[in-house]
Amino acid sequence: MIRFNNRPQHFPESVAEHSFYVAYFVLIICSLLEKKKIKVDIKKALAMALVHDAEEGFSGDILNPFKHFNEKVYAAIREVNRQMVGEMFADLPKELSSELVEQWKEENAAKSIESQVVKVADKLQLLSKCFEEIAAGNTYFEEIYKDQLSSLKKLNQPWWKKIASEVLSGAEKEI
Amino acid sequence: MIRFNNRPQHFPESVAEHSFYVAYFVLIICSLLEKKKIKVDIKKALAMALVHDAEEGFSGDILNPFKHFNEKVYAAIREVNRQMVGEMFADLPKELSSELVEQWKEENAAKSIESQVVKVADKLQLLSKCFEEIAAGNTYFEEIYKDQLSSLKKLNQPWWKKIASEVLSGAEKEI
Amino acid sequence: MIRFNNRPQHFPESVAEHSFYVAYFVLIICSLLEKKKIKVDIKKALAMALVHDAEEGFSGDILNPFKHFNEKVYAAIREVNRQMVGEMFADLPKELSSELVEQWKEENAAKSIESQVVKVADKLQLLSKCFEEIAAGNTYFEEIYKDQLSSLKKLNQPWWKKIASEVLSGAEKEI
Amino acid sequence: MIRFNNRPQHFPESVAEHSFYVAYFVLIICSLLEKKKIKVDIKKALAMALVHDAEEGFSGDILNPFKHFNEKVYAAIREVNRQMVGEMFADLPKELSSELVEQWKEENAAKSIESQVVKVADKLQLLSKCFEEIAAGNTYFEEIYKDQLSSLKKLNQPWWKKIASEVLSGAEKEI
Amino acid sequence: MIRFNNRPQHFPESVAEHSFYVAYFVLIICSLLEKKKIKVDIKKALAMALVHDAEEGFSGDILNPFKHFNEKVYAAIREVNRQMVGEMFADLPKELSSELVEQWKEENAAKSIESQVVKVADKLQLLSKCFEEIAAGNTYFEEIYKDQLSSLKKLNQPWWKKIASEVLSGAEKEI
Amino acid sequence: MIRFNNRPQHFPESVAEHSFYVAYFVLIICSLLEKKKIKVDIKKALAMALVHDAEEGFSGDILNPFKHFNEKVYAAIREVNRQMVGEMFADLPKELSSELVEQWKEENAAKSIESQVVKVADKLQLLSKCFEEIAAGNTYFEEIYKDQLSSLKKLNQPWWKKIASEVLSGAEKEI
Repeated sequence: MIRFNNRPQHFPESVAEHSFYVAYFVLIICSLLEKKKIKVDIKKALAMALVHDAEEGFSGDILNPFKHFNEKVYAAIREVNRQMVGEMFADLPKELSSELVEQWKEENAAKSIESQVVKVADKLQLLSKCFEEIAAGNTYFEEIYKDQLSSLKKLNQPWWKKIASEVLSGAEKEI
Repeated sequence: MIRFNNRPQHFPESVAEHSFYVAYFVLIICSLLEKKKIKVDIKKALAMALVHDAEEGFSGDILNPFKHFNEKVYAAIREVNRQMVGEMFADLPKELSSELVEQWKEENAAKSIESQVVKVADKLQLLSKCFEEIAAGNTYFEEIYKDQLSSLKKLNQPWWKKIASEVLSGAEKEI
Repeated sequence: MIRFNNRPQHFPESVAEHSFYVAYFVLIICSLLEKKKIKVDIKKALAMALVHDAEEGFSGDILNPFKHFNEKVYAAIREVNRQMVGEMFADLPKELSSELVEQWKEENAAKSIESQVVKVADKLQLLSKCFEEIAAGNTYFEEIYKDQLSSLKKLNQPWWKKIASEVLSGAEKEI
Repeated sequence: MIRFNNRPQHFPESVAEHSFYVAYFVLIICSLLEKKKIKVDIKKALAMALVHDAEEGFSGDILNPFKHFNEKVYAAIREVNRQMVGEMFADLPKELSSELVEQWKEENAAKSIESQVVKVADKLQLLSKCFEEIAAGNTYFEEIYKDQLSSLKKLNQPWWKKIASEVLSGAEKEI
Repeated sequence: MIRFNNRPQHFPESVAEHSFYVAYFVLIICSLLEKKKIKVDIKKALAMALVHDAEEGFSGDILNPFKHFNEKVYAAIREVNRQMVGEMFADLPKELSSELVEQWKEENAAKSIESQVVKVADKLQLLSKCFEEIAAGNTYFEEIYKDQLSSLKKLNQPWWKKIASEVLSGAEKEI
Repeated sequence: MIRFNNRPQHFPESVAEHSFYVAYFVLIICSLLEKKKIKVDIKKALAMALVHDAEEGFSGDILNPFKHFNEKVYAAIREVNRQMVGEMFADLPKELSSELVEQWKEENAAKSIESQVVKVADKLQLLSKCFEEIAAGNTYFEEIYKDQLSSLKKLNQPWWKKIASEVLSGAEKEI
């Protein structure tokens, strides 16, 4: 399963690689949050990071502009994903399977702090992927890099505002 | 844009490669139809073959079981595709752009003989891709090969019934 | 079968992919010609585009400076290609096979408007491949990009002169 | 960073992909352990899985038979890894960096249950990678598949003996 | 420059990789010849192995059945190669360049023992490439493997007859 | 076996490809030395070039900063390599196997002129690999390019000082 597959890129990334880096960024963010005494369930956030794109094994890689084209298609896709994501974990022990489906849904809902941390880590992973492509000469990733960076700066969840400048300080100078 | 990207495969195929082979199979089928005095607009069928997957540049590669999971998601995806496919041809002269959108829609509707020829060519291309994977050792494509072959045998459009055995004679011995 | 295989490139292109894009450019050019009331057999031009490099399956990818090194080698290669191209279509129904060989030869001769359209589409495809490589950082394709663009501007077939500026308007600003 | 790079393989795996699957297997194992009322710190085990091969970014992929060739080279490599692994986390906040180094060292020592869980998950990941290669036709991975399976059956840590047959039941029938 | 590029293969091989293995096989053969007191200029044989496919940088990868299709094309291709191979060494010091061109021509002529050793090493390299493909599941290389093996057995240069069974003893059991 | 595998690169290089280019640079250097009447055993230098990285088939690709991290690890790795390199040639006739081990060791020791020539060729190969990556847009190789170039300029073996400016004259203008 290769992501972003409609853009010329140097280093195609599988869902597994992407999820690895998201989990790694989750570790970093949670550590910063703990320093600020903000409570977060790291175990849950890590598990969420590992499964947050699991539905792509069933749906394929649906591109974002399509997914969000209108309310109806977004709702329909979301609904099928919710019904089907369990199949991705069908071989697992039943308790774990249910737990992972719950975490996938929670991540999807983006309400708990853990799910929001995963969403931000997801954006940071994309930012770092763009950076690597650009450093390897690929101008196709410049626009998406700027968009992601500016969207990350605008996020106004309280916990994020407390650590954003620290997290993003490096990224801005990079390019 | 790489197709089938959730199955371990030896020779990933881009939409361009896939569409090339579909167009080539369209040429073959149309030639057989002409011999049987069955009328088909080859130019239209070829153009359809070239654009039949154009929407994937916008949607990404949505896997079939997902697309057909329920009536609602299928309708919603179809609707967005119909609205958006024009964007894939946005840089083209306006007349051509409209014509290609019409051909894409006609192929999608699968009612005219030309669109049905493209649908069959699409399946034949998949069959031949499976054959190549299997000959290169890949057991993951055995099931899908058998499914495609049996689905092609069951198709009962009148024009297809007149040429099916000739077209499929080779395929059956192959594996 | 991978093309240009002696130049460091980011996105190697198979003959199938190349031929797909040539066929797509043929569609565009023919549409522009129709608007200018210039007659062209689109079906024939598309079939030619699909088979114009078929001989490479037998010959391999012979590089252009070699092929055109002297009259003798060019004539000898051309002669073998003419004798052998039929083998590439050996599995096809006999009528189609003969027809494709004829179209391959006609394309090769570059006399009919359809064959000239395919030749121009071939150059446009190369131009767009170069553009993609360059946009992804690859300086090795800059020279060939400029050469192709200037050779396209100098072509003086009457039909081409009527649409060249419209077709090339985008390409020039690009780089 | 590509693993196993001295064996002909169909699906090369980066350290990130490998670590993702190890973390995923850690989740599964921990879930089974919880059902058996065996205490395990899942958060710690997950973090360990994410960083357990981090030193390879500095050392490169040193093959196992080399690493274990004699006591002296093993000790020397281990010692450098211990001194250098911190560099892999040099850009992280200091607390997190120290914590990850500690977890890397603990995993390396293989004494705590969490580290042993990661070691088993590491072997399971290799087993599943071998399975995929073999199913795609690659006989070069048959021997290593059998070796891993038999080594997993012989492991006699008490916690493992309680879940081994459940975990391995699928693997044995597979091939 | 990728070789054999019209056959589905798992491990495409560059001219550099191929030439490396040919040189390595040359070392082996020469060592066996020395044991049998057969004189051979190893330095010359190694240099020949390194440059024996140099012309492909200029010609591209012309497939064998094409090259040998008739006497005329073979002579014409050979002639251009002879005139052009110098360009591949144009950046080198003049003496070396002339020497390499001479060695390339001598290898081409296949008269001296050194050139015959390179020709045999070339076939052995192909044999070992086929073996690797087959062991990785690829049935497309079975026929060419058998052909090469049988052609190697039939070679009747005196020096080869003295070492052939020793060299080929392994290869026959392999498959 | 892919080299440099911890740095994003466009054109990964196998040990075989690398060794081919090293052997080719050895030919060039030796030719320049002969012109300057400096004695060098070309056959030996070529054989050394072919085997100089043979141990990587057993050790994997251990990165340089790791290998040279401290005296102890360097000595331990070197010792294992010396004991194990013979295994890489285990299938060869015994005389040749011993001879190649000797040449590998001599290259490693870097005392004879032949071994020093191989060491320089190794650096030139890296320089040319960096140049290709940079020309293809990859900024990750700029630093290492400059480092290699400056280290080559500082080398003060007498034989090298006599040809260095001629060899490096091209490289400096390149970037």
